[in-house]
Amino acid sequence: MNSLNAFFDQVRLPVEDTLDRLLPPADLEPRGLHEAMRYSVFAGGKRLRPLLSVGGYRAFRDDWPRVLTVAAAIELIHTYSLIHDDLPAMDDDDVRRGQPSCHRKYGEAVAILAGDGLLTLAFESISREPEFPAPALLEVVGMLGQAAGTSTGMIAGQMMDLEAEGSNVDGDHLESIHRLKTGALLGTSIAVGAHLAGAGDADMIAVTAYGRCIGLAFQIVDDILDETAPSLVLGKTPGKDRRHGKATYPGLHGIEDSRRMVGTLTGEARSHAARLGPRAHLLGSFAEYLENRTN
Amino acid sequence: MNSLNAFFDQVRLPVEDTLDRLLPPADLEPRGLHEAMRYSVFAGGKRLRPLLSVGGYRAFRDDWPRVLTVAAAIELIHTYSLIHDDLPAMDDDDVRRGQPSCHRKYGEAVAILAGDGLLTLAFESISREPEFPAPALLEVVGMLGQAAGTSTGMIAGQMMDLEAEGSNVDGDHLESIHRLKTGALLGTSIAVGAHLAGAGDADMIAVTAYGRCIGLAFQIVDDILDETAPSLVLGKTPGKDRRHGKATYPGLHGIEDSRRMVGTLTGEARSHAARLGPRAHLLGSFAEYLENRTN
Repeated sequence: MNSLNAFFDQVRLPVEDTLDRLLPPADLEPRGLHEAMRYSVFAGGKRLRPLLSVGGYRAFRDDWPRVLTVAAAIELIHTYSLIHDDLPAMDDDDVRRGQPSCHRKYGEAVAILAGDGLLTLAFESISREPEFPAPALLEVVGMLGQAAGTSTGMIAGQMMDLEAEGSNVDGDHLESIHRLKTGALLGTSIAVGAHLAGAGDADMIAVTAYGRCIGLAFQIVDDILDETAPSLVLGKTPGKDRRHGKATYPGLHGIEDSRRMVGTLTGEARSHAARLGPRAHLLGSFAEYLENRTN
Repeated sequence: MNSLNAFFDQVRLPVEDTLDRLLPPADLEPRGLHEAMRYSVFAGGKRLRPLLSVGGYRAFRDDWPRVLTVAAAIELIHTYSLIHDDLPAMDDDDVRRGQPSCHRKYGEAVAILAGDGLLTLAFESISREPEFPAPALLEVVGMLGQAAGTSTGMIAGQMMDLEAEGSNVDGDHLESIHRLKTGALLGTSIAVGAHLAGAGDADMIAVTAYGRCIGLAFQIVDDILDETAPSLVLGKTPGKDRRHGKATYPGLHGIEDSRRMVGTLTGEARSHAARLGPRAHLLGSFAEYLENRTN
């Protein structure tokens, strides 16, 4: 894990700098809005999606700083989804990353617009990136549109999650909710990095399979932490999903079996990464890190 | 105006068909969400933005069906903005185009997600369009991202509009709100069409100037109609803006002067269109049509 920690140390600061560069300055009008966007983006996220994008790129090429704008744009999409999911009409969450959620701090109208603004800015930022040829970037717009979208992406997952609240959900249904709600964008983060690094078709298949495994594993770990982690570590209200009548892996399968499933998915992810050769060693460690994370 | 009516008749149906093709089918899961997206898109909009895109394209080239996907994508962006603007936390509008607004019909959570989904789908649709080379489409993503965005676009206008509610707004401030909230996307609709038709730099300057004039004129006419048109024609609650404490052109300048300003802007728009030569005759008629519209 030492090389993974070195990788995190190396990449996290440039990701923060890139986010700062992409976001409108807080003193640019309308200030209340730009402040709110920055508040949510800089609330202390782990930047897993940008790190996965850079990781996907580094499995094929060394010059990873080229991919920072696209990696940061994915974090903007992720942040927009958190802001909208926290709204009273949705998951109604007052706390996010240990701080008041965006609408608690700035009001609902501003939170809706801040989310809209981050999603819009993400696509605009990708379109303005001079580092890659236009066809590659246009494909990234399509990949992210699909991963964030209503048919096979994040919004579909959030909608199915809301619909399922308080109803009986079986294992297959819960798996598809998790794959869509969290897995799609996480998995696509890696695929986008690999695509921009010029990965061939066979490698893209392995990368996509890797992404599907860690995407689902990630959300199962989230469910487990929601039951087991102290709120200070979690940065949000623990046990909330279950109280909301949301189906969770521990609720459906128990903590032990949920942990076992995460272990299996992580093993599969590692073997997909191994097919990419020694350069992708980091992706194997990344899967292990996600399995063992505590927040 | 006869040729303009013929143009409308010719283009409107293909626009509807393209919207139908871009939107996920209503029976695709999550059905409640796709139904809501279709409900708002097919609520009887005038399709001005797609018509303006096709108009901008036709000022330079004949084969306008090529631009339909991009034109329809702009209508998706417009519809998303209406859904989110109508939300209780925003303008709190129960009626849109004579029907219950999206959140009144499907609930707030679905309306938020439907808006998010339409915005996402718009960018994805543009990225999947095979009719144009990638650099041209990527530029369109950037143009629309800016026109819909938080710095110099639609979201900035909506935020400034909310901030201005109940406060004293002078003429300059109101003009910038209107230019951002409505003008930016309307003007960019034409510019996108012209850009995809391969308009040169000098022509793009005239097209952009034309778009700025009709964009502002459009919103002033909206203000006037909000005061003067019967609700049946308007399809929304009339006089509502003023009661909401929103600044309007008639409120600030009176109806007569507001009409005069529209006349001046329309004249300017027509002379910008004239600089584009006889092919752009339609754009001149379009400006006149927008001046005289009654709903």
